Amino acid sequence: MAETETPKRSPEIRKDKIHNRWVLFSPARSRRPSDFKAKSNPQPKNQTKCPFCAGHEHECAPEIFRVPEHSTNDWKIRVIQNLYPEVSRELDFQNTLVTVVGDVAVSGFGFHDVVIESPVHSVNLSDLSPVQVGEFLLASKKRIEQLRNCESIKYVQVFKNHGASAGASMSHSHTQIIALPIVPPTVSARLDSMMEYYKQTGKCSLCDIQPNEFLIDESAHFISLVPFAATFAFEIWIIPRDHSSHFHEIDSEKAIDLGGLLKLMLSKMSLQLNNPPFNLLIHTSPFQDDPSHAPSTHWFIQIAPHLSGVGGFEIATGCYINPVFPEDAAKILRDVRIS
Amino acid sequence: MAETETPKRSPEIRKDKIHNRWVLFSPARSRRPSDFKAKSNPQPKNQTKCPFCAGHEHECAPEIFRVPEHSTNDWKIRVIQNLYPEVSRELDFQNTLVTVVGDVAVSGFGFHDVVIESPVHSVNLSDLSPVQVGEFLLASKKRIEQLRNCESIKYVQVFKNHGASAGASMSHSHTQIIALPIVPPTVSARLDSMMEYYKQTGKCSLCDIQPNEFLIDESAHFISLVPFAATFAFEIWIIPRDHSSHFHEIDSEKAIDLGGLLKLMLSKMSLQLNNPPFNLLIHTSPFQDDPSHAPSTHWFIQIAPHLSGVGGFEIATGCYINPVFPEDAAKILRDVRIS
Ligand SMILES: Nc1ncnc2c1ncn2[C@@H]1O[C@H](COP(=O)(O)OP(=O)(O)O[C@H]2O[C@H](CO)[C@@H](O)[C@H](O)[C@H]2O)[C@@H](O)[C@H]1O
Ligand SMILES: Nc1ncnc2c1ncn2[C@@H]1O[C@H](COP(=O)(O)OP(=O)(O)O[C@H]2O[C@H](CO)[C@@H](O)[C@H](O)[C@H]2O)[C@@H](O)[C@H]1O
Repeated sequence: MAETETPKRSPEIRKDKIHNRWVLFSPARSRRPSDFKAKSNPQPKNQTKCPFCAGHEHECAPEIFRVPEHSTNDWKIRVIQNLYPEVSRELDFQNTLVTVVGDVAVSGFGFHDVVIESPVHSVNLSDLSPVQVGEFLLASKKRIEQLRNCESIKYVQVFKNHGASAGASMSHSHTQIIALPIVPPTVSARLDSMMEYYKQTGKCSLCDIQPNEFLIDESAHFISLVPFAATFAFEIWIIPRDHSSHFHEIDSEKAIDLGGLLKLMLSKMSLQLNNPPFNLLIHTSPFQDDPSHAPSTHWFIQIAPHLSGVGGFEIATGCYINPVFPEDAAKILRDVRIS
Repeated sequence: MAETETPKRSPEIRKDKIHNRWVLFSPARSRRPSDFKAKSNPQPKNQTKCPFCAGHEHECAPEIFRVPEHSTNDWKIRVIQNLYPEVSRELDFQNTLVTVVGDVAVSGFGFHDVVIESPVHSVNLSDLSPVQVGEFLLASKKRIEQLRNCESIKYVQVFKNHGASAGASMSHSHTQIIALPIVPPTVSARLDSMMEYYKQTGKCSLCDIQPNEFLIDESAHFISLVPFAATFAFEIWIIPRDHSSHFHEIDSEKAIDLGGLLKLMLSKMSLQLNNPPFNLLIHTSPFQDDPSHAPSTHWFIQIAPHLSGVGGFEIATGCYINPVFPEDAAKILRDVRIS
């Protein structure tokens, strides 16, 4: 008990130097950091007749590929089109649709896919073996490399919603991939901010990170930590040790190594925080990136548990409120023992 | 019926030129814009023993002022300290706490207040008369002017959470005011983007707005519209006709005029969308604003209903997905009749 007890601390406002934004750290109203748990994490209600389950492939939108490639009923991963895509692969990409008094719009061209991570409904990503998690990462890489062939696509976002309050509408474990004809705002802000750090220091901000008290675990090629100015309580970043701008540069060996560390982080988070709703996000660089960005951009994975909601303050200011200091969260996650 | 039926449209990606961010417009999966309703809007569960109710003043954190000033049991509005403040008025503001390898933090100094909008538990902001809504706006103005005397405060955010899924933890109608020693990220981005527009056109982007098909209603001093690149379905902006950088520049006449239009917008939204959870945000300018910003910054009110949640995509990219085209939402809101 004493181990996780921390003295009551004053609020602090920290700068996230990767995204160039402020985060408010307000010590929990009464709880100790080790008492944080998800209250309940309802799963979306579609357990019966799930189209993502083995045997229901015909209820899904068209398949793009499966792993292993020539498997039949024994597939392990399927990458399929999203049945209700947010962007449309059937549109022509036109650069500018409207320019009335400075209003700019482009057609909603793009690709929206789903990666089904397992044929079995009840299996979560963290239930897979390190090699299987690695295969999921390599399937995502393969799909990104296909999307790269489309000239109009500028950025690909890989993201996972787990639990209804993190946005999931399907409970069968899956990840989504959206390919966009624009560079999204948070990505531009991140690239600019990392470039600024590079200009000031001559170093990549993630190569230069000093994990120290923020470290959780490490593997041969990756480190996991709670960032200095984490947006969410118990947020985890997994960062490749070697400088690399694009997630799709990962090779099989590194993917399996990452698979192990990712599995460990998801398992620790789930055990410590009571299977919380979360998002898993792969932050990479645009395809046709300005070559001057190469030395300053570094891809990483963000795992964002949702232990509290957000309100008008966050929407208005972009300033998130995190009740748990990252160094306290890191200590707790470091100490979780997975049997 | 036919009136609100709109042909199925292709997705479109629009630029919000005020915030310099992209928004994805994806026509609803199957619903027509006029079918959008909040499914349910549970209120936070603290109806009994509410400290914000008349007669329970002693259960609240200290009062700052009340309206009318010398009222006793017959107060109409109370501005009080927040019992669990996110920033602390007791800290000294120190500019920089930590600067380890580029990590920057400042102490969490600031003010966090609550405006209780009515002594009666069940009364919503939209139930008040235009004059009473005006009084609420003037109470917020008064508090902002007090906060302006504190040199370390750079920005004040006024925000309202209505409904549990918009963040409200108290059901008694109230608004919060947070005064910060920093300029928050979304505010900086907005100021920069409006400045850019000014540089390009020589005009303020909000003075220059052409409401046209986006217009909902207007009053003597304000217009209400759905912005061209609205972040949320049925989002409403209320904009002063005359150029003004700071909300606290509002006078009594304009406050009452705004009170009427704000009441109308909240009533229309509530009727059309079935009392949805929402945030009401006052977007103003920093106190010690760079004088060069004056011609380009223009305060406004944003009302953001929450008809669908957000997921990992929005968190990762800052790119929101709006299923309803603003021109369709504006037409529907324009046509709502309040008896
Ligand atoms: N007796 C008393 N005296 C004085 N004040 C009292 C009080 N009892 C309660 N309060 C305060 O009243 C406020 C009510 O605010 P809201 O219901 O709008 O949401 P809250 O701030 O809890 O969090 C929402 O808004 C924030 C900011 O957007 C989000 O971070 C969060 O997730 C979301 O739920 C609380 O801040 C609370 O501290
Ligand atoms: N038979 C089938 N074949 C192929 N695809 C199928 C299918 N049945 C369902 N799908 C698709 O599977 C996806 C499942 O995705 P999630 O559960 O992660 O959340 P969803 O995208 O619905 O929305 C969440 O994520 C988005 C983006 O972050 C948020 O906007 C939103 O609010 C949040 O709920 C859906 O996009 C759905 O269209």
